[in-house]
Amino acid sequence: MLSKSKIKYIRSLAMKKFRNQTRCFLAEGNKLVKDMIPYFECELLVAKSSWIAQQGDLRAGELIAADDNDIEKASLLKTPQDVIAVFKQPDYLLDKEELKQGLSLVSDGVQDPGNMGTIVRLADWFGIKNLICSPDTADIFNPKTVQATMGAIARVKVFYTELPELLADLNDLPVYGAFLEGKNIYEEALSANGLIVMGNEGKGISRPVARHISCKLHIPNYPAGTETSESLNVAVATAIICSEFRRRQNPPNGSSCVR
Amino acid sequence: MLSKSKIKYIRSLAMKKFRNQTRCFLAEGNKLVKDMIPYFECELLVAKSSWIAQQGDLRAGELIAADDNDIEKASLLKTPQDVIAVFKQPDYLLDKEELKQGLSLVSDGVQDPGNMGTIVRLADWFGIKNLICSPDTADIFNPKTVQATMGAIARVKVFYTELPELLADLNDLPVYGAFLEGKNIYEEALSANGLIVMGNEGKGISRPVARHISCKLHIPNYPAGTETSESLNVAVATAIICSEFRRRQNPPNGSSCVR
Repeated sequence: MLSKSKIKYIRSLAMKKFRNQTRCFLAEGNKLVKDMIPYFECELLVAKSSWIAQQGDLRAGELIAADDNDIEKASLLKTPQDVIAVFKQPDYLLDKEELKQGLSLVSDGVQDPGNMGTIVRLADWFGIKNLICSPDTADIFNPKTVQATMGAIARVKVFYTELPELLADLNDLPVYGAFLEGKNIYEEALSANGLIVMGNEGKGISRPVARHISCKLHIPNYPAGTETSESLNVAVATAIICSEFRRRQNPPNGSSCVR
Repeated sequence: MLSKSKIKYIRSLAMKKFRNQTRCFLAEGNKLVKDMIPYFECELLVAKSSWIAQQGDLRAGELIAADDNDIEKASLLKTPQDVIAVFKQPDYLLDKEELKQGLSLVSDGVQDPGNMGTIVRLADWFGIKNLICSPDTADIFNPKTVQATMGAIARVKVFYTELPELLADLNDLPVYGAFLEGKNIYEEALSANGLIVMGNEGKGISRPVARHISCKLHIPNYPAGTETSESLNVAVATAIICSEFRRRQNPPNGSSCVR
């Protein structure tokens, strides 16, 4: 049985204000919660008895067996599943030496929770361990974002910090940014370390951040010069840019399709 | 003044049933509607007088000047803008000869309206003129999809048809498909014509369609063999695949970033 106050607490985590106060966040769904439990400290787990019975050792501050009705009341999903978890937000330390040794993603004001989730999933796919966000970027612990990461949030460290200061500090590192007037990404030399900055959905990269970009990149449309959409969605542009960076580092093995 | 029956009619177009009955669809927003008017037959335009005054010649079956209150009642958006348009669904003819001469995208059951919109926007960006969908693909005229295309729906022809029959008919054309067990896309020969098939978000490409795929492609994660997300979102995978096809056809011009 789930108390009214617990239901209220869980639902309050939809709001950033309460996430900040409690330093907690929400994840829902059988697969997502199972994937996340090994990586985050679980404060509260509300689940059907049948789900609990299928798990091994469950480490959770509080474990509450609930019925469909309880879960429906607490859930933020249209189609609630068998389990809702409240996790502690992790406290990562930004390691500038680590940043210098690989590729990192930087969000300068990405606003849409779905885009943020997709970017985290992309970072995970392409082995990018750090995502550094301006303070006005959407909160990574927004439940919609957490769901959209499909669990990738467990493997990518996300930081919020003032970007101009950080970029000034890392000024010996290549800093790439996506701009409509940038250079053709397919032709640029792309390094194995550096920062890739993605801008806000409407406004792009802000001026104070743009000043630190050492290489402006552009994804050319096809054929060049034709009338087309004005830009690509930021998550889609991130996908293409990350793919192109990793393609250059991908060792060939010479297979091919024969019909 | 907008009548109750007009409001009801506009709002009914959120449902596929009524879109099919009327062969109409909805678009909202100052920029989107303006971009779409030259391309589609406009049956009904509901707009603020101030918006109407700013336009040149407006071809619309019926033009209704409305106030904020009317538009709010008719709108499906959280933040209604100044104009709502009802357009006729276009009747395109599937031209198999055109398909043979370029790249086309194929959706085998993509379900999410947002993904469909992003895929249309990508097709437009990468000069792909035809998107062919299985009957169980999400409806391109869903208002959420129309909005997500950001107007690209005007430049990409979308068809619904049984895929196995069509693919059997086009069996001299290369047919590419995204599979987790496919070949490394960065190493495959990719042709300048052919079909690129993207599968359903959960189930991937169906068996009857998979039978017609001549080249299974895979986007490798990085570094190879590490634990990561199980797959990429279908819109993001479409982005990477289209980018890679077009990169091969992109004439180099030898610019580069110097810091």
